[in-house]
Parts: sequence; structure tokens; C-alpha cells
Amino acid sequence: MALRAAVAGASGYAGGEVLRLLLGHPGIEIGALTANANAGERLGALQPHLPPLADRVLEPTAPEVLAGHDVVFLALPHGRSAAVAETLGEDVLVIDCGADFRLEDPAAWERFYGSPHAGNWPYGLPELPGARDALKGTRHIAVPGCYPTAVSLALFPAYAARLAEPEAVVVAASGTSGAGKSLKPHLLGSEVMGSMSPYGVGGVHRHTPEMVQNLSAVAGEPVTVSFTPTLAPMPRGILATCSARARPGTTAESLRAAYADALAAEPFVHLLPEGRWPSTAAVYGSNAVQLQVTLDEAAGRIVAVSAIDNLTKGTAGGAVQSMNIALGLPEESGLSTIGVAP
Amino acid sequence: MALRAAVAGASGYAGGEVLRLLLGHPGIEIGALTANANAGERLGALQPHLPPLADRVLEPTAPEVLAGHDVVFLALPHGRSAAVAETLGEDVLVIDCGADFRLEDPAAWERFYGSPHAGNWPYGLPELPGARDALKGTRHIAVPGCYPTAVSLALFPAYAARLAEPEAVVVAASGTSGAGKSLKPHLLGSEVMGSMSPYGVGGVHRHTPEMVQNLSAVAGEPVTVSFTPTLAPMPRGILATCSARARPGTTAESLRAAYADALAAEPFVHLLPEGRWPSTAAVYGSNAVQLQVTLDEAAGRIVAVSAIDNLTKGTAGGAVQSMNIALGLPEESGLSTIGVAP
Amino acid sequence: MALRAAVAGASGYAGGEVLRLLLGHPGIEIGALTANANAGERLGALQPHLPPLADRVLEPTAPEVLAGHDVVFLALPHGRSAAVAETLGEDVLVIDCGADFRLEDPAAWERFYGSPHAGNWPYGLPELPGARDALKGTRHIAVPGCYPTAVSLALFPAYAARLAEPEAVVVAASGTSGAGKSLKPHLLGSEVMGSMSPYGVGGVHRHTPEMVQNLSAVAGEPVTVSFTPTLAPMPRGILATCSARARPGTTAESLRAAYADALAAEPFVHLLPEGRWPSTAAVYGSNAVQLQVTLDEAAGRIVAVSAIDNLTKGTAGGAVQSMNIALGLPEESGLSTIGVAP
Amino acid sequence: MALRAAVAGASGYAGGEVLRLLLGHPGIEIGALTANANAGERLGALQPHLPPLADRVLEPTAPEVLAGHDVVFLALPHGRSAAVAETLGEDVLVIDCGADFRLEDPAAWERFYGSPHAGNWPYGLPELPGARDALKGTRHIAVPGCYPTAVSLALFPAYAARLAEPEAVVVAASGTSGAGKSLKPHLLGSEVMGSMSPYGVGGVHRHTPEMVQNLSAVAGEPVTVSFTPTLAPMPRGILATCSARARPGTTAESLRAAYADALAAEPFVHLLPEGRWPSTAAVYGSNAVQLQVTLDEAAGRIVAVSAIDNLTKGTAGGAVQSMNIALGLPEESGLSTIGVAP
Repeated sequence: MALRAAVAGASGYAGGEVLRLLLGHPGIEIGALTANANAGERLGALQPHLPPLADRVLEPTAPEVLAGHDVVFLALPHGRSAAVAETLGEDVLVIDCGADFRLEDPAAWERFYGSPHAGNWPYGLPELPGARDALKGTRHIAVPGCYPTAVSLALFPAYAARLAEPEAVVVAASGTSGAGKSLKPHLLGSEVMGSMSPYGVGGVHRHTPEMVQNLSAVAGEPVTVSFTPTLAPMPRGILATCSARARPGTTAESLRAAYADALAAEPFVHLLPEGRWPSTAAVYGSNAVQLQVTLDEAAGRIVAVSAIDNLTKGTAGGAVQSMNIALGLPEESGLSTIGVAP
Repeated sequence: MALRAAVAGASGYAGGEVLRLLLGHPGIEIGALTANANAGERLGALQPHLPPLADRVLEPTAPEVLAGHDVVFLALPHGRSAAVAETLGEDVLVIDCGADFRLEDPAAWERFYGSPHAGNWPYGLPELPGARDALKGTRHIAVPGCYPTAVSLALFPAYAARLAEPEAVVVAASGTSGAGKSLKPHLLGSEVMGSMSPYGVGGVHRHTPEMVQNLSAVAGEPVTVSFTPTLAPMPRGILATCSARARPGTTAESLRAAYADALAAEPFVHLLPEGRWPSTAAVYGSNAVQLQVTLDEAAGRIVAVSAIDNLTKGTAGGAVQSMNIALGLPEESGLSTIGVAP
Repeated sequence: MALRAAVAGASGYAGGEVLRLLLGHPGIEIGALTANANAGERLGALQPHLPPLADRVLEPTAPEVLAGHDVVFLALPHGRSAAVAETLGEDVLVIDCGADFRLEDPAAWERFYGSPHAGNWPYGLPELPGARDALKGTRHIAVPGCYPTAVSLALFPAYAARLAEPEAVVVAASGTSGAGKSLKPHLLGSEVMGSMSPYGVGGVHRHTPEMVQNLSAVAGEPVTVSFTPTLAPMPRGILATCSARARPGTTAESLRAAYADALAAEPFVHLLPEGRWPSTAAVYGSNAVQLQVTLDEAAGRIVAVSAIDNLTKGTAGGAVQSMNIALGLPEESGLSTIGVAP
Repeated sequence: MALRAAVAGASGYAGGEVLRLLLGHPGIEIGALTANANAGERLGALQPHLPPLADRVLEPTAPEVLAGHDVVFLALPHGRSAAVAETLGEDVLVIDCGADFRLEDPAAWERFYGSPHAGNWPYGLPELPGARDALKGTRHIAVPGCYPTAVSLALFPAYAARLAEPEAVVVAASGTSGAGKSLKPHLLGSEVMGSMSPYGVGGVHRHTPEMVQNLSAVAGEPVTVSFTPTLAPMPRGILATCSARARPGTTAESLRAAYADALAAEPFVHLLPEGRWPSTAAVYGSNAVQLQVTLDEAAGRIVAVSAIDNLTKGTAGGAVQSMNIALGLPEESGLSTIGVAP
């Protein structure tokens, strides 16, 4: 019998993507849909790509609305999840697509978010060492940020195999949906089409401590991350170009073997054949990760590039994948590795 | 009296941009226009954005066609310029928009281009230390590559001031016109729209030795460059994100001062006010360079980002700027810092 | 037990989309994949968005390769299908995604295609009056053109209800994948991004006689169609703006009722609530058709606008939908009305 | 000696484009720049593509600020121009880029704008019969709407020559800058990229009565216009596909001759050679109009297609062109027919 899932924040991009995936999930029935400013509206006016739900009316994000579900997805602005989560019963699987429960270190949280730390939940990136076990049976999942998903998957095999020095440099390009539906001038179509621009440069982007946390845990030593996000003229997708100085003795062969070993059993991560490089187009709308790695011998650096769909594997797909693990469902239920291209 | 300029390769993107700029240059009259496969066609069918030249017929790229001009722009595929240049008189200013005469080191040329080294001409990036003097009165100009233009301008002040360690990491996004009008499947609109993808990863892109040459000369020691180019879904523009470990003692203030000093007198390079970051949209169609720099203290790195129009400052505008210097014309003649936006 | 389907022309956009859909079809197993110039290559290099088929090797489009399948999809250049179809057995369901068997009138075929008429197969637009019945049990399906799909669905209810004068005016915008993977300069990303342009203007586009055929059949009288296709800067999607003078007595109410009645039972066509208009984004990657209609009283015209994904409902999805009907499978098998947005 | 021009509404897209053009105008000096919500900010933060004005501070749109100029451009939201215009002296040339003074018919104004009619100023589309004379020496100019500019130029020659029936059908695609910098969800980059959608369908768009006014005046009889605007995924540009039933006796030759005659002397309108069609890319950033016309004999319709840059010829360029005429300057001062492409 299908489990019932509610989605809080169903009018936004993350919430819409959760719904798109749940509509194709054989084990989930969609329950309450809530919103804040858009409560009372029909979903068809806000998410016109989801016709099976077009006549559903958005309800307010209130405890009585969210009660009675087996799973609750929180696709809320940062800082709002803890208060909602507290009102849900202990048996409910609560999946926070926001940042509130991602960081272990309260000091890092406070430095980057400027508010009290809400705590730390099992981290929904099953491909990281140990993560899958921590997700089994859990009733709380912190869905990773979109950039940390792309970056951690690109670099963790190198750190796990002790091939990389602990100073990573990352430049990532994201489609505009990563910024959500917020009405800001720099997100207007007129501004973004035909333009690339950086933001949050110099170590100030909030996803930086999450990358540091993931890579340091794998490396067993503190790893610094110089992270520069850029806004690209496309609706979806992240391309993360990640590099680190190679440790002495690293060879092209040992590097490739480390990646092949670390990723061999992963259903969603594809280490491409040599000579082929990822593109965000190839993973459009899918939960797949395309990955390639090489050794730049002249510069002495490992260069790994990953491509994901920021809304799917980077948010809602990662959330569903982790939900499947938590609930003991097949990990691939409701998810696909097939992109929509061209 | 106006000088006459011929353009060899007038049917391509670089040649078209040279013409667009020369049409607005008060001191230049446009002479012969040549092409290879398109010889015999009217320019209006190939460059429909240049109505004043719509009825001009393209001639073959032959010595007798190019004879009798004061300036000859070569916008030819790599490897073709030397043979054409030899047929031109000694008094002609020859401006090679290709790569043939950019590299000083024959070994580097042969490693990256796989053909014999044609030689080395004065390098058309006037903003580099000493470059402007070398261009005055010259009859040969090697126009820099588009990526080396963006990267060298972003990093040379840090190296000139001895603030950066000699290991640069660069990730740059380019619009598709950087690849020219070549008919390759991955350049089709269906493939590039909505997609970011890397290419030439791992130190193999041909612009790498040019960056190494420029930064090493400024630094006074060998600089390595880990360079990853990416293809972005836009027709024009380069955004270069460049970083290097900061030398001990570097502060945010000393860094900013170094950039302000190095660029203060430059008419085309704009160090943005603190807090604002470059975008390719803002320099669309202009010869301007937008630049910003910061110090990531946690990661210990200098991060500099530049935006240029790859066809203007990155190719044809840089060529015209250098031409102006060589001919003793005002450096800004025919060039603008005003972009077409949004 | 699953039926086996071969795809001839698996390296192109139409073939790739057929495969994307068949991978999710519960009743079909994917058999031989063939190509012409790309025979011998792995599919992963050509269709990187289809990882489950990445290691499949393309075979030549030959009778012995296509033999032994229950269904054969032909995604070939126009004019090639008849010869291949002849080599297939009588029990095989042959689905031609090309134009060869769409037109009933040999004279119209010869005028627009300049070659002998190959014949006429049951037409795969099930929503047209009588079309579904003709598809049941057939062993030959002519998949409609992408534009005729969008236009016929937008206008047939008005003609079926005798509300429109027999002179239709259509302007449609298509994403670039409609032109296939052909290497033509005007299809380069540098040319199409940021640009709208018309082509095939003045009644010369090959899809015109197909629209005339469909609308005339429904109207019971000859209908002319003034059709202007335009190329839009997007990879997928068709937006068709269709109008015709309203017959005397037509009211907003009678118009809406005619559309609601004609489309009420259709699983893939959504007449939107009043006040909302279609967008190609909402049907991205789906088999859905979004449709809206209004009466412009001042101009005396019915205006109907439809949005489809040209590769899905406009080609491969329409093909699969018709296949399902022909084989007696549920019409919606392997198809979705859910788009990938934003 | 240069005349001084103020720009009210300098923070928006229309105001920015006026400034871009005035910076290259030899006879104009830029005076006060005003804004509403952005008063007090530096222009560099709002219009980063205009470095020569980066340090100019926006002032409030007040009479004392606008006083003392020879020319005042009003780039204000509709309905705000009349009040500002009243405060300016009688000798000042006031150029309204908004709609307030475009319509002659108060009833049409009130029906479409829902507010009292402010009056009617000389109409700034010099190419229309009689318009240039009306502009000479005027102190008031109503700049046409962007769509009416594209549509009136595409169809007036057919109506002037009595070749077209008085029922025009127009479908036009516009870049998103046509909607201004307003923060509306459907204008976000995530929504517009990859999408075409119509709006204001069925005769309700406010530019409709302006087209009716222009074409009726030329035709000497009432002309209806069925107008459907669509939003295209590009920042700039309008492609207008316009058609009307051909009057009996119209031939391809008479049609072409009518267009050639009507446009022969126009500096900005280019009737393309037969077989070539307009593209918005070719007029990007320029004041040029590309135009082509054909006769669809099977459908009995004249089809004319025009391409303009909505911000240049469609707004600011048209304004500057009309200003030049009003002031007795060369009509082409500060304007170019050269686009930025690719």
C-alpha cells in the first residue's frame, strides 16, 4: 500500500520537482500540498507542467494540514524547517530540502547563516562513505545543497584514496533555478540570458562549509575549499570543475582506479569513458551524475568535473533517493538516469 | 587621410567583428575582403548584421588581392598566417588574429600545435608590462587568444606585485562564437542551449602555454596554469575565474592596491567597486574588461574574475587597439567601453 | 511478454527520443539500433543522456539487422523509408517518423517533395476524428509532422464545429531540434541563441499540405493554410498561433464549448482554464498538448494557441501513442503528461 | 555646441538604451539622470554596461532636476508622462517613450488603458507617410510602441499601395526586455529560457489600437488587426510576422515594387534581397529594420516579416531618430545600422 507524502512549499522550484518525481513513484501517494503566499491557489496556475495535480488547492503550511502523512518534504526557505519539523510526529519521515540540518558544526552554521544552529540530521548523499548506512531507517534526512552534491561526488574518491592535497579549488556554474523563484532583478530573463557572472566569491557562499565538512570527513584531515559559484544562462544544471594538487606518486592510472572503485556500485553516478566529458544537458531532468577525472601533469593537479541537474540529483532527486533508503524501498524507485536531451 | 585595411577571412566570426569595428573607426577605410570557401559570395548573405558592406563581394585570399593596403588583418585558421604574411610588403602592418606568432618558445608551440614554429611577433595585449612599448611602430602584431586575454589581465597585477604563488588555477566559460563558425555537432544550437560542458581539460588546451608565457614573464619565475575551459550557452563572452595561493603577508588591502595601481591608467580595464562582480552581459560588444579581485582568507587564495567579450577585447577589439598603438593613432579609436545590455 | 522494437536512425534527435520513451515503456524491449554514418559507434558517444544504452553499438540500417522485431521505428531522412519498409515482413508494425507516407494526394507530395509518391499510411494523430479507429490493428503508421501535430490539434475543433472560415493563418515557433542534427551554419548555437527568424515563408514549407489535408478533412471543404514557421532560441518545443475568421454567429461560448467537447476525452490534450495560456516549457519532454482558444471580436477571428514538445508529442511520443493503439496496448503506456520545468 | 538632454527613468531598460545611444551622439551632452525607487544610487550599479556614467548619481524625477535642459526623455511607466511634461518649459523638446500620447482616439485610449486620455503628440515613426514632416521642429514626440514599430513598417507599404485587404493578422515574438525590469514571476530567467508563450491574446494587447491607427491612416479605410504577441527566450528583438489577404490583381512583382518604392529612401529600413529573411540577431543593438515580403499564392495572402531591436529602433533608437528630425540634426546622428552578431 502506498505511503502518503505531503510537500510543504509546493509552489517553489524544489517543491515542484519533488512533486514531479513523486508522481512517478510507485510507492508514494501525494497528500497535502502547502504554500505560504500562494495558499488558496490551484497548483495548475503555479506548476503548469504537472497536469495531474492541476486542480489541487494549496493549503497553508500548518501542523493540522501536515498531520497524518508518512513522509513530509520540507521545501521551505532556510531557517523555517525546524519549527515545522517539531510539530510532526515521531513516526513521520521528515525530509528537509533546506539547509537547516546539514552542518555538524554549530560555529560554522552561525558564521555562514547568522542564526542559532538547529541541529544535525543524517545527510542525504548516499554515495559518501558511510552515508547509506546512516540513512537506513532514519526518520530525519538533511538533503544536501546542490553545489555540495556536485562537488563532493567529484572529489571524494580522490580524498578517500589519499591522492589529493587538502586544498580544493572549485568553480561551478549553475542554472538559474538554483536561486529559486525569488523576484530579484539579477534573476530576470533579460539579465541572465547571454550572461555569465560570479557571486558569493571569496569563501562566503553558504555551501562552502558543507563541502569542507564532506571532504574533510572523507580525507580524515581538514580540507579547505576555495569555492566560486557562477550563474549560467540555463534553467537547470550544475557543472562543477574541481581540482586539487596531486599527492606525490599519483598517476593517471591510480587516479582512474580510485574513481572506478569508489563509484562502481553506484546506480546514479557514471564515470564516463576516457575522453568524454560531462554536460549538464545529458542529465537534464534525471537523477544521474556524470563525472570525469584527469591528471594535469604539467600543473600537478587532479581535475574532476561533474554534471548534475541541480533540481533533481541536486535537490528533489537526492531527497527521493534518500527517502527510498530510509523507508527500505528500492533505491531507484521513482528515479531515472535518463536525461531529456537535446 | 584614412588608411586602407584589408581583412583576410571576412566570412568568419573574427573577421566579421574586425569589420564591425573598422566600420566605426575614423581613421580606417575598408579595402579588400577575402575568404576561402565563400569567395565570390556577397557579404550580406554571410554577415547580415553589416548592411554598409552587404553588396561587397568576397575575393580569394591571394597576394594580388591583399596588395596595396596599409593594414592587413589575418583572421584565418591556425597555421595559415605565415604563408600569407610573407607575400605582403614590409611596410604593411600585418595583424594576425590567429595563434601562429603568439608563442616565444618553439618547443611549446610544437607540443601544443604539432607543426613547425613560425616565429614570434610583438604581442597585442597592451596592458601587460612593456607590451605597449613593443607595439609602437611595429609592423607585425600577434593578437592574443581570447582566454589568455581574460586570464592574463585578471592575474598579472597579483604576479607583478609578488602576491601570488606561481601555481594558478583557472576555470573559464566561453560563449560559442569562440569556437568559430565550424560545423561540428557539439556546436549546434540544440546541443549548446541549456548546457554547460568542459573541453580540453587537463592542460591540453592550446591557450595554456600562452597564459604560462604571459604570467611567467610578469612573475619573473615559471608559473604553472591549470586551465579548464567550458562552453556556455551564450553566443559571446568569457568569464574567467582565476585563483592562486596568496603569498604570506598578502592582505585584502595590499591586494586591492596592487590591482588599482596596475590598472589605474588603462582605458579599457575596469576594476569594479568592491562588492560588485563582472558579468559578460555588461561588456557585450564592447572592448571593456570588467575585473574584480578578493582574498579568500580561509582558503588562503587570491580569487580574480574577469569578463570580456571574446570577439571584441578577446579578438578583434584587441587587434584594433594594438593597431592604433602601432600606427600612432589614439588607442581608443574605433573602440568603445559601452556594452549592449540587457 | 515484451515486444521487441528496433530503431533505424538511432543516432539522430528523433531516434534518440524514441529510445528515451521506449526505455520507460513497460511493454517494449529495445532491439537493434541502426545508423548510417555512425554505424559502428557506441550510443553513449552520440546520445549521452541514455546511460542504459551507452554500450550498445550502432549497426548499419540493413534488412538482416532489422529482421526479427515486432516493431520497427524508422527515423530516417525523408525519402528513405519506403525502401526499408519493403524489406520488413508483413507482421511487423512499421512506424515511419518521416514524411514519406503522410500525404494522400500524390500531386501535393510531388509538388512539395519533388519525388514520386510512396503511398499513404494510417495517420498517427489519434485525436483527429476517425484517426484512432484507423490505427487499431494497423501494421503501418505515418507519424505526423511536428508542426501539423500542433496546428491540427489547435484548429480541428473549430472546423469540426463549423465555426471557422476555411482560411487559416498560422505562425509557429519551433525549437532547433526540429531541424535535426544536420550541420548547417544557421543551426549553430552562435547563430540561433538570441535570435528569432522565419524560414519557408509564403506557403513553401513541406508541412503545409499536411495541415491542409487534415483541416480540409475535418471541415468537409478545402481549407487554405498560410503557414509561417520561425526558428526560436530553444532546443525543444513548438508554439503554434493559429487563427481563422469566425463564421457569423460564433460566440465565445459556442467556441469554448466546441473545444471542450472535442477534447474532453483526450488523455494528452489539455484545454487550459480560461485566462491561462500555453507555454512550451510546461510540456518540455512530455507528450502533453496545452491548448487555449479565444474569440477576438474586434478582428472577427478565432485565435487558438497550442504548445507541444516537437520531439515528444510532435514526433516520438506521437509515434509511441499510435503504436500503443495499433498494438492494443493502453494508449498512455510509456508516455507522460508531466513536463520538466522550469 | 552640444544640447543638453535629461533622462527621466534612467534605471530601466528604455532609459539605459537612451543613454547608450546618447553617449555616442555627437550633438548631445548628457545632463540629469532621474529615477524613482533608485534615486540616490550610482548608475554603475544599475547599468553596469555604461562605464562612462558609472559614477553618476540618480536624482529624483522632479521639476527642478529636469529644468534647464534642451531635451528631456521620459522613460516612465505608462500614465506618468503627462504630469512631468507639464512642468517643463515650452522650449524644451519632450520625448515620451511611454504610451501616453500615442493614440489619437480618446475612446480607444480609455478602452485599452482605463484612464483619461492625455492627448496626442506627433508620432515618432518617421518612415510613415507624412510623419517626418510632422516631426520637424516639434517640441513634443510620442515614441511608438515597439510592436507597432515592427508591424507598421512591415505592412504600411502594402496598404499604401492598396494591395492588401483591411484585415491584418500579426503574430510577433519579443525578447523579454520588452516587458521592462519589472519583477514578475513569468519574467524570471528560469521561466523564460527554453520557453515560448503568448500573452495578451485576442485583441487585448495595448499596442493593438496603435497598429490599427497607423495602418488605417495609410490605407484610408479602417483596418482591423488580429495581434498575438509572444514572449521569446532572448533578451532583445522583435520578429513580426504580418499577413493580409491580397487584393485581386496583386502580383509578386507589384508587391515587391510597392515595398521597394516605399522604402527606397529610408536610411534604417532594409528590404532584403529576395530569398533572404530577417533575423533579430542581425539587428541586435542597431537601429536597423530588416524586412522581407512575399506572396503566398495558394493561400492568397501577402506575408511580410520584419525584425527590429525592440530597445533600439523599437524604443530608444526611434526616439533619437525622431529627436534628430525635430532638432534639425542629421537623422542618423548617434544611430547605427550595424548589429552586434553573432
